[in-house]
Amino acid sequence: MKFIRDSLHGNLQLDDFEVRIVDTPQIQRLRRIKQLGFTYLVYPGANHTRFEHSIGTMSLASRLADNLNLDEENKEMLRICGVLHDAGHGPFSHVSEGVLDTSHEKLTSKLIKESQLSDILSERFNIHRITETIAGNGPLGSAISGELDVDRMDYLLRDSYYTGVAYGVIDVERLIYNMELHENIVLRQKGVQAAESMLLARYFMYPSVYQHHTTRIINSMFRKCLKNLFETGKIDARNIYQYDDLDIITTARAQTGYIKDMINKLDNRELFKTVFSLKLTELEDPDAVFRLGNQKIKKIEKELSEDMDIPEGYVLVDVPEYPSFDEMKTQVDVNGSFINLSDLSTIVHALKDARFNYADLCIYTSGKYVKKLSGAPFRDYIEL
Amino acid sequence: MKFIRDSLHGNLQLDDFEVRIVDTPQIQRLRRIKQLGFTYLVYPGANHTRFEHSIGTMSLASRLADNLNLDEENKEMLRICGVLHDAGHGPFSHVSEGVLDTSHEKLTSKLIKESQLSDILSERFNIHRITETIAGNGPLGSAISGELDVDRMDYLLRDSYYTGVAYGVIDVERLIYNMELHENIVLRQKGVQAAESMLLARYFMYPSVYQHHTTRIINSMFRKCLKNLFETGKIDARNIYQYDDLDIITTARAQTGYIKDMINKLDNRELFKTVFSLKLTELEDPDAVFRLGNQKIKKIEKELSEDMDIPEGYVLVDVPEYPSFDEMKTQVDVNGSFINLSDLSTIVHALKDARFNYADLCIYTSGKYVKKLSGAPFRDYIEL
Amino acid sequence: MKFIRDSLHGNLQLDDFEVRIVDTPQIQRLRRIKQLGFTYLVYPGANHTRFEHSIGTMSLASRLADNLNLDEENKEMLRICGVLHDAGHGPFSHVSEGVLDTSHEKLTSKLIKESQLSDILSERFNIHRITETIAGNGPLGSAISGELDVDRMDYLLRDSYYTGVAYGVIDVERLIYNMELHENIVLRQKGVQAAESMLLARYFMYPSVYQHHTTRIINSMFRKCLKNLFETGKIDARNIYQYDDLDIITTARAQTGYIKDMINKLDNRELFKTVFSLKLTELEDPDAVFRLGNQKIKKIEKELSEDMDIPEGYVLVDVPEYPSFDEMKTQVDVNGSFINLSDLSTIVHALKDARFNYADLCIYTSGKYVKKLSGAPFRDYIEL
Amino acid sequence: MKFIRDSLHGNLQLDDFEVRIVDTPQIQRLRRIKQLGFTYLVYPGANHTRFEHSIGTMSLASRLADNLNLDEENKEMLRICGVLHDAGHGPFSHVSEGVLDTSHEKLTSKLIKESQLSDILSERFNIHRITETIAGNGPLGSAISGELDVDRMDYLLRDSYYTGVAYGVIDVERLIYNMELHENIVLRQKGVQAAESMLLARYFMYPSVYQHHTTRIINSMFRKCLKNLFETGKIDARNIYQYDDLDIITTARAQTGYIKDMINKLDNRELFKTVFSLKLTELEDPDAVFRLGNQKIKKIEKELSEDMDIPEGYVLVDVPEYPSFDEMKTQVDVNGSFINLSDLSTIVHALKDARFNYADLCIYTSGKYVKKLSGAPFRDYIEL
Repeated sequence: MKFIRDSLHGNLQLDDFEVRIVDTPQIQRLRRIKQLGFTYLVYPGANHTRFEHSIGTMSLASRLADNLNLDEENKEMLRICGVLHDAGHGPFSHVSEGVLDTSHEKLTSKLIKESQLSDILSERFNIHRITETIAGNGPLGSAISGELDVDRMDYLLRDSYYTGVAYGVIDVERLIYNMELHENIVLRQKGVQAAESMLLARYFMYPSVYQHHTTRIINSMFRKCLKNLFETGKIDARNIYQYDDLDIITTARAQTGYIKDMINKLDNRELFKTVFSLKLTELEDPDAVFRLGNQKIKKIEKELSEDMDIPEGYVLVDVPEYPSFDEMKTQVDVNGSFINLSDLSTIVHALKDARFNYADLCIYTSGKYVKKLSGAPFRDYIEL
Repeated sequence: MKFIRDSLHGNLQLDDFEVRIVDTPQIQRLRRIKQLGFTYLVYPGANHTRFEHSIGTMSLASRLADNLNLDEENKEMLRICGVLHDAGHGPFSHVSEGVLDTSHEKLTSKLIKESQLSDILSERFNIHRITETIAGNGPLGSAISGELDVDRMDYLLRDSYYTGVAYGVIDVERLIYNMELHENIVLRQKGVQAAESMLLARYFMYPSVYQHHTTRIINSMFRKCLKNLFETGKIDARNIYQYDDLDIITTARAQTGYIKDMINKLDNRELFKTVFSLKLTELEDPDAVFRLGNQKIKKIEKELSEDMDIPEGYVLVDVPEYPSFDEMKTQVDVNGSFINLSDLSTIVHALKDARFNYADLCIYTSGKYVKKLSGAPFRDYIEL
Repeated sequence: MKFIRDSLHGNLQLDDFEVRIVDTPQIQRLRRIKQLGFTYLVYPGANHTRFEHSIGTMSLASRLADNLNLDEENKEMLRICGVLHDAGHGPFSHVSEGVLDTSHEKLTSKLIKESQLSDILSERFNIHRITETIAGNGPLGSAISGELDVDRMDYLLRDSYYTGVAYGVIDVERLIYNMELHENIVLRQKGVQAAESMLLARYFMYPSVYQHHTTRIINSMFRKCLKNLFETGKIDARNIYQYDDLDIITTARAQTGYIKDMINKLDNRELFKTVFSLKLTELEDPDAVFRLGNQKIKKIEKELSEDMDIPEGYVLVDVPEYPSFDEMKTQVDVNGSFINLSDLSTIVHALKDARFNYADLCIYTSGKYVKKLSGAPFRDYIEL
Repeated sequence: MKFIRDSLHGNLQLDDFEVRIVDTPQIQRLRRIKQLGFTYLVYPGANHTRFEHSIGTMSLASRLADNLNLDEENKEMLRICGVLHDAGHGPFSHVSEGVLDTSHEKLTSKLIKESQLSDILSERFNIHRITETIAGNGPLGSAISGELDVDRMDYLLRDSYYTGVAYGVIDVERLIYNMELHENIVLRQKGVQAAESMLLARYFMYPSVYQHHTTRIINSMFRKCLKNLFETGKIDARNIYQYDDLDIITTARAQTGYIKDMINKLDNRELFKTVFSLKLTELEDPDAVFRLGNQKIKKIEKELSEDMDIPEGYVLVDVPEYPSFDEMKTQVDVNGSFINLSDLSTIVHALKDARFNYADLCIYTSGKYVKKLSGAPFRDYIEL
C-alpha cells in the first residue's frame, strides 16, 4: 500500500497491483509530458503533467465508482482505466497529436497491448475491456471518455489550478453524486446545472487557455518544427508514445537550419506575430474552414511564402481546433425516461451556436517578415 | 489608519474618514444582518453578513478605481459608495425586502439622509452624488449597481466561499482589468468571456443557492411571519432599516399563536413541504405568474385554506423571484463602437430564454396538513 | 439519507438515524451559537457557528474512523460523538463559559441525559459510553477530546478559513493517516511533524484570534454584562444551554442601566480601552495571575472604581485565558514503544516555555473614563 | 505594458523596461528549470519552475516596496532584483548547486555582468547596487536575501501550493505590513508571530519536502550522475547557468555505462534504497557530519564499494543539508530599540536546538546490491 499526494485531490491510496502499474516506465514517462504543452509560455504556472492528471483521474474514478455502488472488481477496473487513459499521449500532449494521423486513444490501446502493461493487467482484467472502456465504449465507457467524464472533470479543475484562470472551477461533488448507472451512465435531473456549468467551464477555457491566441501561435510553430523532425527521420512518428517532451526539444536543438531556428525561438519566446485573422462568424459556412485539409493549407503557406518572398516555413496558416460543442449525447433521467441534455437545457443548446464565436483562422509570421507579409491579399489565397 | 481583514480579499486599509463612516451604528448594524437570510438552514456555512460584503465591495471598488485611473476624489467616492450601498437593507436582507413596498436602494438613500451619515459624508462629498451613484446613475453608477458591478462580483464570490458551492467562482481580475470609463463604464472586448462567465455564475447560483427550493420554503414561512409582525404593529415596517436579524426573531418568539408557531418551526427547522409545483416552462405565458399580484395570491391562499379546512397562514403560495436575465445593457467597446453585450454573445442571449428553466410556482403547507391539501385541484385556484 | 454541504470538507452523507439526531432542537440551536463569540467584531468573517463546526467534526471523525479501521458500530459512535460534542455550549461559546462555574463538556453530558437526545441515542448506543467518549475518556476519547482530536483539527481549519488568518491551516490528511489505535489513540512517528505543526498552529491562533487584544476587551465587556443578567435573574445560568446568542443580546437590550449601556456599546462597537497591561513574562511567578480568583479580581475592580470615582462595572480587570500548552500527553509509537510527544519534540517542548509570551493581565475602561483611570497605581491594587 | 498571470498572486503588471528584462534568454531559461529539482518524483505536482517563482518574488517585492513607502526608483529596483535573483541557478536548482564549488548567488552576479542583462539594466540602474542587493547587502538587501525575504515567502507558499503539503502556508500580508525600513529592514513587534510562523513553516517543509528521504535519494543519484558529466567533460560546470533541465537529462541519456544507467533509473523511478541511517541526534557532536568533506565521503564510498564488491558509484553516502536555523539575525523594533528575534522568541530559539531532529546521514545503494551491502559495519567506515 502506498499514498500519492495530489495537490488537488489530496492523498490517493494505491494497492500493490496499482503500484506495479504506476511504476511501469510507460506510466512514469507521463511525468515528463506536460499536460498543456507549451501553454507555460503564456501561463507560467502551467507546468503540470499527464502523470498527475492521470493520478487525479484515478482519484475521481474511484469516487465515482463509490457513488455508482460498483462492486470491487468494476471499481478497480475504473480506477485502472483512469490512470491508464492517457498513456498513449505523445510529447506535449495534444500539440503533437495535431501532427499525427491517429488519436492518443488509439495509441494508448496500442501501447497497452505492446508493453508489459498488458502482462500485468491480464493478471486481473480482460485487456479488451480495459481498452474499450478507455475508448468510451461499454457501460462504464462514458465515465472515462464522455462529455461529463472524470478525465474532463480533472483537467478542468487542474488546468484552472495551475494557470490561475478561474473558469475551470466546477462542482465535482454535485456532478459525481448525480450520476447513476443504467445501460450507460446517465445524469439525474438534480445534476443538470452542474453539468451545464461543466460544459460551460470547458467552453470558457477554450479562448482563455486551450485556444489562447498566443498558445495557438506557439503550437503552430512547434507543429511545423515537429513535422520537420518526422520528415527528416529524426523522430519516429509511429513510436511517438515512447518519447517525452525533453527528447523532442533537445533533438530539435541538435539540428541546424529551420528546425534549430524554430526551437531557438520557442526557447527564447521570440514568437511569430499574427498578420491575418478571419473570424469564422464572418463566413457563410464556417465549417468550410475545417474542410480545408492539410494539403490545401500547405499550398496556401507555400504560395504566400513564394509570392511574398519569405522562406518556407515562416508563413503559418492556422486553422482553429474544431469546437466540438455540437454533439451532446448525455442522457438525463427525468422521472424514469431519458432525455438528451441538450434538449433539456437552453444553455447547452446555445453552446452549439456559440461554438464559432471565438474561432478564427489565423496567419502568422516571424517578426522580421511581418512588414513584408502584411499587405498580402490573404482571402484570395484562402478562397473561402 | 486601520486595517480590516477580509477572509476573501485580504487586508483593506481605511483612512480616518472611512473609519468614521464604518464606525457609525448604521454600518455596524450590518454585522447583524445575514447576507443570505435563512440560507444557513440549507448551507450551514452561509452565516456571512452584509458588513463583510460591504467591506469586500469597498475593496473591489478600490481596485476598479485604480484600473479606471480615477483621481483620488472619485476613487474615494467609489470606495464610500461600496461600503454604503447596502446600508438600507432590512433584517435578513432580500427576504424582508419581499414584504416591503420599497427597495433597499431607496431605503439606503433615506437612511443616509436621515442619519449622522449625511453629516459625515457632507464634509467631503455631495450627498446627492453618493446616493445617485449607489442607485446606479451617473458615470460611475454602473460600477456599484449594474450588471457587472463590484457588488455582484463580491457577492458571487462570497456566497460561493461560504456555501461551498463552486458556481460563484469568477475571474474578478480579468473583469476589472477589462473595464474602461467613457460616458459610462464599458467592457473591453477582451473581457467578454469574463462577463459571460459572471452572468452565468449568477444564473447557476439561482437554483442552487438563491432560489434553492428549501430556501424558498423557509423564506415563504418567514415572510408570512414578518407580515404578521407588521400588521400587528410589533415591528414598524417604515423603519425596517433600524432593526437587525435578532430583533425580528426574538420579537416573533415573544408572540403567541401563528407568529410564535412559525418562528418555532424555523428555529427547529420543521419546514413546510411542497404539495404543488407548476413549472413556468409549462405555461404558455410564463410572465403571467409575475402579474398575479399580492391580492390574488392572498386570495388563492385563503380559498385553499377554507376549502381544505386548514388554518389560515398554513397554505403558502410562492411565486419565484423574477429571473432578471432579460435586460442586459452592458456595452462592449468593439474597436471604438459600443455594442450591446447580449447582441455580441450567444451565451448571454441564451440566458434570456433559459431564465424560466428552473422557476416554478409552488404551494407549501405544514407537515401535518400535507395529506389534507395534497388532493386539491390547485390549477383551478391559480387560474393560469 | 441526506447530504449536508460543508464549506470546508464538502458533502457529508447522513443516514436516517443521524438525521434524527441532527434535526433535534438541541443540535439545531447550535446554528444560532457563533463559534467564536464576538470575534466577528474583529474579523468580520468570523460568523461561523457551532453547528457547522459540529458537522465538520463529524466529517473528520468519520475519516479518522476509516483510517483506524474501526468497525461500523464504533465508526458510527465516533461520528455521533463528533456531532454531539459541543451541544452543551452556551451562547457565544467560550465567552459565556468564563462566567459559568461548569464546563461545556459537563453541560453537554447533562443536556444529552435530560433531552430527547438520550431517547434517540439509546436505541443504538450506551449513553454513558457516548458521554464518556465526549469527555475524552475510553479508548476513543482522545479522538474527540485530546490534544490532536478531530474537534481541534476542525476548529483550527475553520477559524482560519473564516477569519482569513493563515495560521490555522494544518495538514489534516497527514495527521489522520498517522494515527493508530492501541489502548488509546497514538501517533505514528511519521506524524510527528504534522502534530508539531498543529500544536503550533493553535499556539499562533491564540494571540492573533482567540486572545486577540480587541477580542479580550469585547469578551470582558460581554461577560460583565452576562453576569449582571444572571444576577438579576433575567437569564437562568443553570439552563444556559437552552439559550442562543439572540436570546442573550435581545434580553440585554430590553434592560436599562448598566446592562443596556454595555450591549449598546457592543452593538455599536464602542469598545473599552486598555489603560494597563502587565506582561506575564515580567512576573517572577506568572502562574500567580491565574490564582487571583474571581473574588480578588472583583475586589480590585471595586477598589479602583471607588478610588478613581468611576461607576461600578466600568473598570474591568482581565486575566488572560490560561495557555494550556504545558501538559502534552500525546504518545508516539517509536518502533513499538510509546514515547511522550513533548519528550520527543524540541518544538513542542518549547511551547511550554513560550506559553506566557503573549499573555498579559489587562485593565480596561470606557472611553470617557480613560483619562481619569490612566494615572492609577495599578500594580499596588493587583499586588503581584 | 503587459500582464503575467501567476497562479498564486494573480496578475502582475510589467512596464516596457521590465518586459525587456523578462524577455531575455537568461530569464526565459528559468521556465525550463524546475524549482524543486526532482521532487516531482515524490510529489507529482511539484513541476513549478524558477520562472514563476521569480515572477512571484517580483510581485511580493512590489507589495513590500509599497508598504515600506519606497520611492519609484527603489521600488523598481526591488522589483527587478526580485525577478533576477535566481537567474544564475543551474539545472534542477539546488540539486546541481551541491556539485558546484560556488553558489547560485555568485553565479547570478556573474551571469548579469556577462550577458545582455547588464546592458539593459545599466540604462536605469547601477549594476553593482543590483548585484549587492541580490546578495543580501545594502539597506534593501534583506528584502531579497534574508531570513524573512520575499524570495522565501514566495517559495514557501508556492512549494506548498504545488506539492499539496499545507505546512508552507504563511501569512504574507501580516509579514509585509509589519516591516519597516531603518538602516535595514526590521520587523515591527506586531509581526513577531507572523515571523515565527514563517520560520517554522520552513522548518516543517524540510523533512516533508526539501529533505524528504526519497528526494534525498534521488538527489544523491542525480548528483553523482552530474559529477560524472562534469568529469567526462560532457557538461561544462563553469557555464552551468547556460544549461536547462532538459540539456542535462538528454545529455546523460546519450551516454553509456554508469551515467546512462543512473538516468534510466531516474526516468523509470527505480530508486536506490537506504541501507544505513545515522541520526545526528545520536552523535555527541552532530556538526562533525558537516565537516566530513567531499574527499572523506568519496573515500567512504570507495572503501565500501571495494570491500563489499559493489561497482563504484553504486554506494552513495549522503550528508543531509545543513539545517541553517541557527543564525537568526532579524531585528525587531521594540519601542524604538532593536532586539534580535531569536532573543525575543522562545519558539525561534527552539529551532536552533531542533534543527538536527530530522537530519541523518544515509547510505544508499541500488536494489540489487541491498543484500550485499546490508551487513556492512557502516560506523567503522564513517568514523564519527
